[in-house]
Amino acid sequence: MEELDLILKEGQIVTASDIYTADLAISDGKIRLIGSHLDCTAKKIVNAKGKYVLPGGIDVHTHLDMPFGGTVASDNFETGTIAAACGGTTTIVDFAIQPQGATLAETAAQWQEKAAGKAAIDYAFHIAITDMNDAIMKEMPQAIQSGYSSFKLFMTYDGFRVTDDTLLKALKIAKEQGGLVCVHAENYYIIDYLVKQFKAENKNEPIYHALSRPNLAEAEAVNRAITMAKLAGAPLYIVHLSCRESLEELKRARALGLPVMAETCPQYLLLDEDKYREPDFAGAKYVMSPPLRHKESLEPLWKGLKNGDLQAVATDHCPFFFQGQKEMGRGFFGQIPNGAPGVETRMMLLFGIGVSGKKISLQKMVEITATNPAKIFGMYPRKGTIAVGSDADLVLFDPARSLTIIKSILHEHVDYTPYEGFNIQGYPVMTIAGGKIVAENGTFTGKAGTGNFIKRSAPVLI
Amino acid sequence: MEELDLILKEGQIVTASDIYTADLAISDGKIRLIGSHLDCTAKKIVNAKGKYVLPGGIDVHTHLDMPFGGTVASDNFETGTIAAACGGTTTIVDFAIQPQGATLAETAAQWQEKAAGKAAIDYAFHIAITDMNDAIMKEMPQAIQSGYSSFKLFMTYDGFRVTDDTLLKALKIAKEQGGLVCVHAENYYIIDYLVKQFKAENKNEPIYHALSRPNLAEAEAVNRAITMAKLAGAPLYIVHLSCRESLEELKRARALGLPVMAETCPQYLLLDEDKYREPDFAGAKYVMSPPLRHKESLEPLWKGLKNGDLQAVATDHCPFFFQGQKEMGRGFFGQIPNGAPGVETRMMLLFGIGVSGKKISLQKMVEITATNPAKIFGMYPRKGTIAVGSDADLVLFDPARSLTIIKSILHEHVDYTPYEGFNIQGYPVMTIAGGKIVAENGTFTGKAGTGNFIKRSAPVLI
Amino acid sequence: MEELDLILKEGQIVTASDIYTADLAISDGKIRLIGSHLDCTAKKIVNAKGKYVLPGGIDVHTHLDMPFGGTVASDNFETGTIAAACGGTTTIVDFAIQPQGATLAETAAQWQEKAAGKAAIDYAFHIAITDMNDAIMKEMPQAIQSGYSSFKLFMTYDGFRVTDDTLLKALKIAKEQGGLVCVHAENYYIIDYLVKQFKAENKNEPIYHALSRPNLAEAEAVNRAITMAKLAGAPLYIVHLSCRESLEELKRARALGLPVMAETCPQYLLLDEDKYREPDFAGAKYVMSPPLRHKESLEPLWKGLKNGDLQAVATDHCPFFFQGQKEMGRGFFGQIPNGAPGVETRMMLLFGIGVSGKKISLQKMVEITATNPAKIFGMYPRKGTIAVGSDADLVLFDPARSLTIIKSILHEHVDYTPYEGFNIQGYPVMTIAGGKIVAENGTFTGKAGTGNFIKRSAPVLI
Amino acid sequence: MEELDLILKEGQIVTASDIYTADLAISDGKIRLIGSHLDCTAKKIVNAKGKYVLPGGIDVHTHLDMPFGGTVASDNFETGTIAAACGGTTTIVDFAIQPQGATLAETAAQWQEKAAGKAAIDYAFHIAITDMNDAIMKEMPQAIQSGYSSFKLFMTYDGFRVTDDTLLKALKIAKEQGGLVCVHAENYYIIDYLVKQFKAENKNEPIYHALSRPNLAEAEAVNRAITMAKLAGAPLYIVHLSCRESLEELKRARALGLPVMAETCPQYLLLDEDKYREPDFAGAKYVMSPPLRHKESLEPLWKGLKNGDLQAVATDHCPFFFQGQKEMGRGFFGQIPNGAPGVETRMMLLFGIGVSGKKISLQKMVEITATNPAKIFGMYPRKGTIAVGSDADLVLFDPARSLTIIKSILHEHVDYTPYEGFNIQGYPVMTIAGGKIVAENGTFTGKAGTGNFIKRSAPVLI
Repeated sequence: MEELDLILKEGQIVTASDIYTADLAISDGKIRLIGSHLDCTAKKIVNAKGKYVLPGGIDVHTHLDMPFGGTVASDNFETGTIAAACGGTTTIVDFAIQPQGATLAETAAQWQEKAAGKAAIDYAFHIAITDMNDAIMKEMPQAIQSGYSSFKLFMTYDGFRVTDDTLLKALKIAKEQGGLVCVHAENYYIIDYLVKQFKAENKNEPIYHALSRPNLAEAEAVNRAITMAKLAGAPLYIVHLSCRESLEELKRARALGLPVMAETCPQYLLLDEDKYREPDFAGAKYVMSPPLRHKESLEPLWKGLKNGDLQAVATDHCPFFFQGQKEMGRGFFGQIPNGAPGVETRMMLLFGIGVSGKKISLQKMVEITATNPAKIFGMYPRKGTIAVGSDADLVLFDPARSLTIIKSILHEHVDYTPYEGFNIQGYPVMTIAGGKIVAENGTFTGKAGTGNFIKRSAPVLI
Repeated sequence: MEELDLILKEGQIVTASDIYTADLAISDGKIRLIGSHLDCTAKKIVNAKGKYVLPGGIDVHTHLDMPFGGTVASDNFETGTIAAACGGTTTIVDFAIQPQGATLAETAAQWQEKAAGKAAIDYAFHIAITDMNDAIMKEMPQAIQSGYSSFKLFMTYDGFRVTDDTLLKALKIAKEQGGLVCVHAENYYIIDYLVKQFKAENKNEPIYHALSRPNLAEAEAVNRAITMAKLAGAPLYIVHLSCRESLEELKRARALGLPVMAETCPQYLLLDEDKYREPDFAGAKYVMSPPLRHKESLEPLWKGLKNGDLQAVATDHCPFFFQGQKEMGRGFFGQIPNGAPGVETRMMLLFGIGVSGKKISLQKMVEITATNPAKIFGMYPRKGTIAVGSDADLVLFDPARSLTIIKSILHEHVDYTPYEGFNIQGYPVMTIAGGKIVAENGTFTGKAGTGNFIKRSAPVLI
Repeated sequence: MEELDLILKEGQIVTASDIYTADLAISDGKIRLIGSHLDCTAKKIVNAKGKYVLPGGIDVHTHLDMPFGGTVASDNFETGTIAAACGGTTTIVDFAIQPQGATLAETAAQWQEKAAGKAAIDYAFHIAITDMNDAIMKEMPQAIQSGYSSFKLFMTYDGFRVTDDTLLKALKIAKEQGGLVCVHAENYYIIDYLVKQFKAENKNEPIYHALSRPNLAEAEAVNRAITMAKLAGAPLYIVHLSCRESLEELKRARALGLPVMAETCPQYLLLDEDKYREPDFAGAKYVMSPPLRHKESLEPLWKGLKNGDLQAVATDHCPFFFQGQKEMGRGFFGQIPNGAPGVETRMMLLFGIGVSGKKISLQKMVEITATNPAKIFGMYPRKGTIAVGSDADLVLFDPARSLTIIKSILHEHVDYTPYEGFNIQGYPVMTIAGGKIVAENGTFTGKAGTGNFIKRSAPVLI
Repeated sequence: MEELDLILKEGQIVTASDIYTADLAISDGKIRLIGSHLDCTAKKIVNAKGKYVLPGGIDVHTHLDMPFGGTVASDNFETGTIAAACGGTTTIVDFAIQPQGATLAETAAQWQEKAAGKAAIDYAFHIAITDMNDAIMKEMPQAIQSGYSSFKLFMTYDGFRVTDDTLLKALKIAKEQGGLVCVHAENYYIIDYLVKQFKAENKNEPIYHALSRPNLAEAEAVNRAITMAKLAGAPLYIVHLSCRESLEELKRARALGLPVMAETCPQYLLLDEDKYREPDFAGAKYVMSPPLRHKESLEPLWKGLKNGDLQAVATDHCPFFFQGQKEMGRGFFGQIPNGAPGVETRMMLLFGIGVSGKKISLQKMVEITATNPAKIFGMYPRKGTIAVGSDADLVLFDPARSLTIIKSILHEHVDYTPYEGFNIQGYPVMTIAGGKIVAENGTFTGKAGTGNFIKRSAPVLI
């Protein structure tokens, strides 16, 4: 046998269904061998005894280098992917957001340029369609062929939002062409009404961001999007589902056998709307859409993951500095840039709180952070599992390591973390991407620009 | 005791909860006495032995003299209310539809004029708001004070439809002022999309009217309207709920304790979408919105009435002549005037098929045709029951009379009935309105113009 | 017109669906006339202005003069019916409990004897079958013919309990013969297991009575009884349904259209299991089966009444003196006689807390305390409503009277009330039974022995 | 590297979550290596290209050599395990049924003896407790320690059945000791009643077997067993769940988060009660308990597998010859021995109809036939997956092979198969047990007596 690049010895290998002890050998960036007591030689041997070896995290919802409300999300493809790697994530799917008037090809090209030479891990793009018309619809099949097999439509936000007929049209095309439509589901009019009302009443503090986007505004839109998917006979993926009312809609649809899937995010599992009441405008750190919810949604979401009602956990990573960016909205919550960091902390939170806290099993963690995302977004089996022939994208967790999360240990290019002070049991001590060790003990050891664009195929429905 | 006007001897008196044998005496248009073997004298004595004496029907959904799509509904307040009286209905609530730019007061005045001197039975008006703005909102409290305590908003139809924020605003005002918002719940965009698609595909026949307005387009809008009502903390009334998917939404809301109510109509209980396939364009007779549904919705709706999930049965009476009016749409279903007659047949169908067919009890028939409509629309206890002090609005059913419905025995000013050939067991042999016998054995014996406008109060929530 | 016996002037007459102001005249024990401003003469005229006139309460679940565990329930048919009358109840349906080996005829005769010459109001009997065999089954049709049209079967209690096949047989016969089976639904084995366990652990206090009969023991049995009814195609009535889990089973069955009905009791609406922890063995006062439940069942039961999921409220009146009787169980909760008083307080609690506290409407109160019980147990329309021709059984409530319930104002022959200290708004100031004023302002003004046995017919299913 | 025993080249390896192409190498009966293009040497190399390599089937419900109703199931541990091996099953868990009066140890010993020297594949035992008492309860912990970590209790069958308190006790002990209780859930009394009724009516044909065991008899018992498990806080496993009503109960429980699991069987997925009407007493072939159900249960059960509501598919293999055994019941269905063969056909049916027919995915097939059974019954990860270190129990499916099932190609020691004439797409062309090829193309190539007893651990809850 040829010399191997890397061998992990005696780790506890975890897949979405299994857990077992084995040696794992890598060559040419791929998983080459899994065996017991491999006696092969390798350029490097890592003792993984006592560690869990998981598929590297796949974060299918990031916003790097994204313009928003007169500013730009503070992580670019270099800083953002380095942070991802340090946190155990080895692939991201970012949103290429169509500028008004641009074609899908132009949109993709623009985002390709942002990533090229910068990304430290593999990356792909959803295309967010903000300006739908007949020409764009005609372009969708080509976009799917080119590896952009998923599209996001916004049901809210002035300038971005689409009406229900556009959603219906996009769903039909996606279905016919092997694509997948993702929606940001919130009711535009409810939010518009409430934002105006609060503004008129001079209620400008961050908490009114949450109050202007009630759970029902999301649940209603989820139901509506599902209706369109049902009419189109198409699959649907709901991004950042945040509350129990929406989960109920999802469960109703899935009980009928509809191919409707959804992700939630760590912030909706671990934080609640009381955060908006932090003094000195600190609540602005948590301003994102959908907003953090009442704590009574937390347990249902965990249970939704456990039971398979929810299929994935992504981050909606979209950081803005508190100083200078979030502060733009001191006078009015509507001017706070929407978004928060999270790409680096997702895996450690899900392990350190979710698995260690017995909310989900280790296999379930793999399923929702890697296997399902890879399947749903057409990257499986290249990505998303630990199997011979798959990309050697791995993360090693040391269950014995405990840690308190503080901003200073993180690499996200932003001046805070929403998870400051969170104690976790278990830590991602090593990240391997494409067979290379790109992070170790919280230090980036890879190289920016080595990540590759991943062309994606049709979804596998979960 | 003073001489009485009219005594009904030994009828079976039926209310929403009771049934018992008694004599019933009327004076001054009111129910004066109910007793066993009354030995009072009266100007007229009717032998009601073997007959059921029910509260006169209240039809809370009619469109008389209404402009629609370049033509006008063919019954005016004279012909329409005479037909109602002959069918056992003694009160209607018609829709005063706001012309673009008109105030609510102007709207009401316009409809008052249509009815004045013509109506053979009592009448009231909902105001259908089609052009909402701040001034109209400010006018709503005054309209409620003036006895127009319910408003209808359309979620579909170009020119009429309101967006969700308008619905939300109207609900809030109605709630604060003791009014009630009614909605026509169908998703505009779904219909718009499908109508355009069918037109493009040259699918112009009446069946495409049904196919362009799928059950889900209604159910989605019902859920959305309920969402707005929940956010507003306001009651809501859904007009012409037509299918089981919508009923499921209603049941979900009511199970949560929300004050959401709905009517269905005889056409959705008794007819199905196969009617649209009748040859020679005859399907056009059934073109209404929502359309007739697949027959699998029929039983759920009956069960919904029986179980109290649905609160009322109204007609959406809106007749157009087949010849000359319906025929306007021969080339394209979208040009067929929407609507069908029904004000005269509602009571006989509910008795003759619903009660006689054991689908609902007699008391339930009273509840859904009179008591609940009167309560929900602020006319109770003046209207809607048989109680001392209430208006002497009554209908006598002879359960032994059977009949086959044919157009020629009906008084609706239109050239067909959707119920042609329906066999019914039980027939409304006498209608008494305001203490006067206005119809007997299918012949109008009253006088046009004797009906009064009924100012309505706040809803009693059912 | 002949001279009338009694006229109530200008009361607010309430039925299960209506409320209106009228005069009500009585002769020969029947309601003779209802009218506005009656100018008839009468032996007695009562000014009912400002009072609500309701149908007299029907309590379909009492245990008078009943042997239990070596003692006897402390109210006999004289004291118990006097208490009932003072509380606004004008008819009871007591349980004639089959002694081992007795025929149904012998059972009925034995209970008839207990009541004869003693009852102050009308009465009827369910027969509780405790010793089922072929002969008893053969006797059931005759019992139904004789006016004992309902049977109770116990799913728990040594000596009484029947196995599922007996329940199935009884349901089939009842269905064929126009009878109704009632069940006491608790799982025998769960209770037996837990009682033995607690006893073995020397856990003897009253609270262990509750802990030995968990909600699930009832809900399981409710589901099982419903299963038998479904297999038999028969209606079913569940006595003293006490908790939300059981209510869920009931709702499931009714949503399927099954004719399953249930009563709850004031104690399950107003008291909770914390009562068992009252010091000095006072918890024994509340020892009954099913036991009081956790407070989280209270609101669901009220909502169940409001929504029509629960059809009746009865009392399970079965009093034992605290001193001398309840105290028999000081050493072990299993020896505390099961039961508590309630026949006198039901109506005032439902009005004074239920109606005044907006938990249910006045009409709903009538429905669940009189109309439904009369219909379900074959006494309608003779009993259960205010209609011409019905028995003149009435109760007048003064909504302005408030009161704190204390034992000393009650007539139940027992040394405590579970509702000591309850404040009520509204009070039954007059009870009329068979046209006679039998109670006024809490004083019995009737005569023991004037009550009549009521032969009952087939159930009207609600 | 040492010489390997066996290498499968380029098969499509399937686990409960993954599918990928790799070589798989075996030594010492274990999976030693999985890799791409392994260049190791081995005693034998099998070309698995184009084949699916699945974990060998685990059938957790068999009855070999079991006495029943005066006869004995016709497969012993030799013939039964050879049939299993030929069908792709590599482990069975048989039921050691406690003879009246025997200890658990004696029971286990008796069944060990039946298997010793005969079994061709690995085997384990559940202990079916039929005679529960304090001594048996005290013995349960020791049984669990000895590797009999699951117990079966019958809720029906004279002589076997346990009352609810026994079930409760067993659940509590199992929970405390790391065991699992399985139940045969049918209501004894319903069946007893109906069997007697049909017998009395001289309804003796096989169809009355089905009619005497209605769906509700199972659903009721499922609900009751779940109630006991909830009270005990214990996990529960329901054997041979057969109908949609029972599935609803299971789903209700799991939605509450209860650790309740269930298996169904191929016969309930593929056959329906019409089989009982086959002429010439042929319906007797399908007499088993629970019986085959109405076809409307088929799709819900498939959907239950797909959605994860049902966790496993076992066979309840319990064959009796039609001639001589089934015929014992010609005069009365109650004397037909209960049971049918299935151990050999399970895997080919699930693949050939379930997977090929798109009812379930390949991964789901692995999950329900191997991974979940191994986890639930404490054999994971030694059994139930394809992972390095696991037993080399494998089955190779050729998706291109189609076949019509006929009795003559099967090895079950019985004169018929219920699946005669079933066409399947995909066939188990090779079975490897403990690293040895024990079956190839439908021919047994292994050796009786080489199977080992598997001591089982605590359940992993699914």
